[in-house]
Amino acid sequence: MTLKLFETSAPHPEPSSLTAFAENALDRDSEHRDETSVAKALSIDGAHLFAFAGEKLLLKHDGQILDPLFAKYELAGLEPDWDNAVLLGYRKSGEPRLAVPVGVSVDDLASQYKATDMRALWREHLFEGEILGEAAQAASLIRWNSDNLFCGRCGSPSESHIGGYKRICTVCQHMIFPRTDPVVIMLVVDEARGLCLLGRSHHFAPGMYSCLAGFVEPGETIENAVRRETLEESAIVTGRIRYHASQPWPMPHSLMIGCYAEAKSTDIRIDDAELEDCRWFTPEETLAMLDRTDASGNTSPPKGAIAHRLMRDWIEWQR
Amino acid sequence: MTLKLFETSAPHPEPSSLTAFAENALDRDSEHRDETSVAKALSIDGAHLFAFAGEKLLLKHDGQILDPLFAKYELAGLEPDWDNAVLLGYRKSGEPRLAVPVGVSVDDLASQYKATDMRALWREHLFEGEILGEAAQAASLIRWNSDNLFCGRCGSPSESHIGGYKRICTVCQHMIFPRTDPVVIMLVVDEARGLCLLGRSHHFAPGMYSCLAGFVEPGETIENAVRRETLEESAIVTGRIRYHASQPWPMPHSLMIGCYAEAKSTDIRIDDAELEDCRWFTPEETLAMLDRTDASGNTSPPKGAIAHRLMRDWIEWQR
Repeated sequence: MTLKLFETSAPHPEPSSLTAFAENALDRDSEHRDETSVAKALSIDGAHLFAFAGEKLLLKHDGQILDPLFAKYELAGLEPDWDNAVLLGYRKSGEPRLAVPVGVSVDDLASQYKATDMRALWREHLFEGEILGEAAQAASLIRWNSDNLFCGRCGSPSESHIGGYKRICTVCQHMIFPRTDPVVIMLVVDEARGLCLLGRSHHFAPGMYSCLAGFVEPGETIENAVRRETLEESAIVTGRIRYHASQPWPMPHSLMIGCYAEAKSTDIRIDDAELEDCRWFTPEETLAMLDRTDASGNTSPPKGAIAHRLMRDWIEWQR
Repeated sequence: MTLKLFETSAPHPEPSSLTAFAENALDRDSEHRDETSVAKALSIDGAHLFAFAGEKLLLKHDGQILDPLFAKYELAGLEPDWDNAVLLGYRKSGEPRLAVPVGVSVDDLASQYKATDMRALWREHLFEGEILGEAAQAASLIRWNSDNLFCGRCGSPSESHIGGYKRICTVCQHMIFPRTDPVVIMLVVDEARGLCLLGRSHHFAPGMYSCLAGFVEPGETIENAVRRETLEESAIVTGRIRYHASQPWPMPHSLMIGCYAEAKSTDIRIDDAELEDCRWFTPEETLAMLDRTDASGNTSPPKGAIAHRLMRDWIEWQR
C-alpha cells in the first residue's frame, strides 16, 4: 500500500459529497425561521413544493417527463394540509422550496400523477443532484411532522411552528424538534491480510454484500458504536476507527456515518438474527462486485450508497 | 507546524475516549433484547439501578459518600415505575445495570437522598469514568421514554418493550425507537494566520469562549452541517472539514460530533440572536484559556468537554 489507511487524509473531493442525497444547496437560514416563514415563502414568485401523500412523494407526469415540483396552484385538487407545510429553504436564484402533505389517497390519484418513495427515486435514477437532496430533506421533515401530530408527554394535539421545524403541544406546551437518527456503517479492514469484511442481511437482494451497520445508541461515541455493532454482528474485534464520510438517508430520517474499522481478530461468528452471511473479501473480489463483473454474480450496493463509497475508496487507496 | 492538521492521523489515545460520558463498558447485547430483559436482569445478584425523579438522578448519601446505584429493595419507598424500567447492559463481572423512573417528587425526598442532573454530575466531579458513562446512557433513555408515553401518530398511550428500547402504541401499533440527536461542534482554524475561531453564547458563564455548534438537520451531511452552522453564526466561509472526536451528551440525548473546519475567509459577522461575541484567538491565548491562566480572565469549557478536546489537540498538534 502506498498510503496507510489510518494515517492518510481523505481523498478529494470530499467523500460525503459523492453520496446520494448529499447534494443540497438550499439556504436554510436556520437561525431565522419564524411563524411567517411558510406564508412568506409561498408569496414569492417561483416558489415550488414537494407534495407527499402519506410517505409517498408525488410526481407529475405528462407521458415523458416526471416532475416532483408543484406550483401552489397545482396542488388545488390534492387537499394540501397547509398547517403542516415545511419551508426547506431558498435556492441561489431566490426561489423558495417547500414541502406539504396532501390529503388525497395514493389509490385515488388521477392519471397525471405518479407516487414514489425516496429509495425508488434514487435507485431508479428518476432524479439526481440537488433535487434528490432537497427531496430527502422534504421527506424526512414531512415524516417527522406526521409521526408527531400528538404530544408524546400528554397525548394532546401538537401544532407545527417556525416553518415545520418545531412542534408545540396545544395543552402542556411540550416542545419538540426534528429528529435525525445517527447510524454507523463500517468497512472492517484486516490490513495484514489485505481483506475487508462484508455481510448480507436476510432482506438483501440475492448476492448483494455490504458493510455492517447499526444505530448509534444513547450514551455511545461513534467509535464505540462501530466496535459494538461489529462485535455483535460478526464477533470480529476492532481497534482503531477512522471516520470517512457521511450521508443523509431519508428512510425516514437517518444520518449514515461511514467509518473504517481496524480488524484485530479474524474468526467470524455470525449473528443469525441480523445476518445471513458474513465473509472476508479480497480487493479484487470487492472491485468485481462494485463493477458488476464478479463471476459468482455477487454485487455491492450501487454507486451513491455510502457502503459503495467505503468499499471503492478502500481499493483506490491501495493503488 | 510539524503536522498538517488536515492530513494527519488522530493522536492516540482515541480523542473520543478522553471526553466526559464516553467511558461505558457495559455489554448492551443490543441484538438480543426481549420482553424478559428487565425481569431477567433484576433477578440476578448484584443488579443495580439508577433512579430518576423526573429528570433528576437520585443519589444516596450518608453524610460522606454519594452513591447513585440502588439495589432493587432500596427503591421500595420511592414508587419505582417498573413498566418503564430500562436495561442498560451487563458489567464484565456479570452484574446488570438498569435505570428506573420513580414516582416520588424531588420536593418530598427524605434527607438521605440528593437529586442532581447530568451536568452537575460531571461539572462538580461527583463521579468519573464508567459510572458517568452509564449514568449518561440511563438519563438519555429515561428521558426518551418519559417524553413518549403517548403515540405521536394517534395520541393513545404507548408501552415500553424490549427493556426500554422500543415503544409501541397500544391502539395503532406505531413503533418508535430511542432518539439520539447529532450535533456538530467545530473548531474553525485559519492555518495561514495560525488562529482559531471561538464564540460565546448569551447564556455562557462570564468570560467563557467555546467552539461553534449546532444540530445536524434532516437531509444534511456532517460536513455540510459544519459549514452551514459556521456561516450562519459567524459569516465565516469554511472549506475542508476533518472529523476529530465524538461525545455522548446526555442533555438530554445528543451525540456531539467534533470537527476541525478550514477557514476560507476572515471577516466575522456575528449572528446576534445566537452569539454575544465571536473572535479569532492565537494558540497562546487559547492555551491560557484552557489552563485557566489567561490575564483577561477568559476561559474555555472544562476538561472532558469535546470543545476543550478540539482546542487542546489543535495546540498540541502544532508543537
